[in-house]
Amino acid sequence: MEKKKNKQVILKDYVSGSPKESDFDITTTSSINLKLPHGSNAVLLKNLFLSCDPVMQFQMKKAEQPMSGYQYYTPGSPINGFGVAKVVASGHSNLSEGDLVWGTTGWEEYSLIQNPENLTKIHHTDVPLSYYTGILGMPGITAFAGLYVINPPKKGDTVFVSAASGAVGQLVGQYAKLMGCYVVGSAGSQHKVDLLKNKLGFDDAFNYKQEPDLDAALKRYFPEGIDLYFEQVGGKMLDAVLLNMKVHGCILVCGMISQYNIGEPEALKNLMQIALKRITIKGFTHRDHHHLYPKLLDTILPHIREKKVVYVEDIVGGLENGPSALVGLFTGRNFGKQVVALPH
Amino acid sequence: MEKKKNKQVILKDYVSGSPKESDFDITTTSSINLKLPHGSNAVLLKNLFLSCDPVMQFQMKKAEQPMSGYQYYTPGSPINGFGVAKVVASGHSNLSEGDLVWGTTGWEEYSLIQNPENLTKIHHTDVPLSYYTGILGMPGITAFAGLYVINPPKKGDTVFVSAASGAVGQLVGQYAKLMGCYVVGSAGSQHKVDLLKNKLGFDDAFNYKQEPDLDAALKRYFPEGIDLYFEQVGGKMLDAVLLNMKVHGCILVCGMISQYNIGEPEALKNLMQIALKRITIKGFTHRDHHHLYPKLLDTILPHIREKKVVYVEDIVGGLENGPSALVGLFTGRNFGKQVVALPH
Repeated sequence: MEKKKNKQVILKDYVSGSPKESDFDITTTSSINLKLPHGSNAVLLKNLFLSCDPVMQFQMKKAEQPMSGYQYYTPGSPINGFGVAKVVASGHSNLSEGDLVWGTTGWEEYSLIQNPENLTKIHHTDVPLSYYTGILGMPGITAFAGLYVINPPKKGDTVFVSAASGAVGQLVGQYAKLMGCYVVGSAGSQHKVDLLKNKLGFDDAFNYKQEPDLDAALKRYFPEGIDLYFEQVGGKMLDAVLLNMKVHGCILVCGMISQYNIGEPEALKNLMQIALKRITIKGFTHRDHHHLYPKLLDTILPHIREKKVVYVEDIVGGLENGPSALVGLFTGRNFGKQVVALPH
Repeated sequence: MEKKKNKQVILKDYVSGSPKESDFDITTTSSINLKLPHGSNAVLLKNLFLSCDPVMQFQMKKAEQPMSGYQYYTPGSPINGFGVAKVVASGHSNLSEGDLVWGTTGWEEYSLIQNPENLTKIHHTDVPLSYYTGILGMPGITAFAGLYVINPPKKGDTVFVSAASGAVGQLVGQYAKLMGCYVVGSAGSQHKVDLLKNKLGFDDAFNYKQEPDLDAALKRYFPEGIDLYFEQVGGKMLDAVLLNMKVHGCILVCGMISQYNIGEPEALKNLMQIALKRITIKGFTHRDHHHLYPKLLDTILPHIREKKVVYVEDIVGGLENGPSALVGLFTGRNFGKQVVALPH
């Protein structure tokens, strides 16, 4: 039997507070059999790209009230997440050696996947493979579901996107521009603001860290108010947005990254605006929308090929640099979608 | 010209904080001409019932950011609100002397209405006239729009109603029961809890003031979680509800009365549940749903006549007792829908 050393990123212990690089070990003590036992339904993957996603921070914690559908990490074991991989061996009828797939895989060189029906086969390879962790992967489904299905804005609507240069935000802004909206984004550095304005086609953008009064900032960019807010950060930003929504405006919520790590979530003061302005708030996640994937490919692949949509990635090389990249996501160190590339 | 003394409830000055009886004057210095000038389009009303509604507390304040659609009171002038009245004289083609109407009128014996097109003529007088300030008036539209149109619960759904014995809550609970739901209400006294359980047909009810841990209370009544929360109070209750919503649950928000009077709104800590549980929150108000009124009458009048729905009112007599009744609404002193009856 052919055994191979399998480098892994191991969670040392449950994380409380902000994750640090020292919460992880890189180990090379594990080895994996590159052949499947006869009759196995499993699939053996060689991982090519690993995705750093906000939700992973929940998965590192000891869950007091585990949420169904969320897979918590086990200390002493490799963490996992979305990734792109090549099939090395397959016991599953839909997948063959050499196929490319995206889906949940381990933070390790090789992963044995016991439920390969959750993997999505990649058919279009004229676009960067890493895109299947982003624009054509989970964040892509989030942005597509939000903007194209759950609450498509109308031409002329005013749209505000927080975390706008991130994996999802940059897509939301570009899709809203394609729909004829006025789009403003917020981000955490001048460099990101320049990206939004100069490369991603946002009408305007601002650095929220430079704004002592977020309410005043939003009033500057949206004197008439906001029709659609795409919420990813929560806290003070959400509170300021509530004051600046138009009557009958909508807030799409797919995350609140600013609140994941602080012991006490920030106090919101303006929730009464929900009733006063008849605001609709829709929490959603990609989990409920994977059935949209064929429609997403039909819509977005042409946009990519025609360069109507661009996608900015922050790719670091090597599994050993994974923990640093992942930790950086929670302090906003990433510039675009954070990906870890493994040797192909 | 026939002039008549017109007793009025005058707002002395803008109210900050909780309104007090001493914020109002009862005056009899004003008089009104009971004939309309020739060619006038106005309508002169003799007021019969005046409605005490939560929104009136906003209208007493000096608005820093006036909300369009909300009519703020002017110090030195009589306050206004919804009421039931009889037409004494009419310059409007749709209304005649003797007609009964409901709509916005003054807190005074007689009101001259310059925009009578906003009045709704009352055709069904086999039910108590005061109902047109409640089950067949503005609160009725709120409950009907929420439960029958905006988010009708399904049979078997679990429904939680706060401020459940109030003008809107008692209807929401009864309508949800008619739809086959499991319904629990919260209220602020044992007397109100008894009303919910014994007269209004709620499956269960609790006194929120007796619950040191609202999260634990909700878990007791909703071990499987809440499908629909009808929100009228905000603050701590909303925060606890967020922890107890089912995945894909819905929160209908038509008010947050607990937050109207406190300088600093209470801090909510559980807003992340919106994303985690894919919760939809829908702010709404009767204002957008008056077109439903014919459908409401078709649906609800038979329920009243067949005693499938009851309506509990707290009627005080005399305009001079209006300020006390109104102020009591904000401390929960009312037992059911708070109405002020004037001599007919």
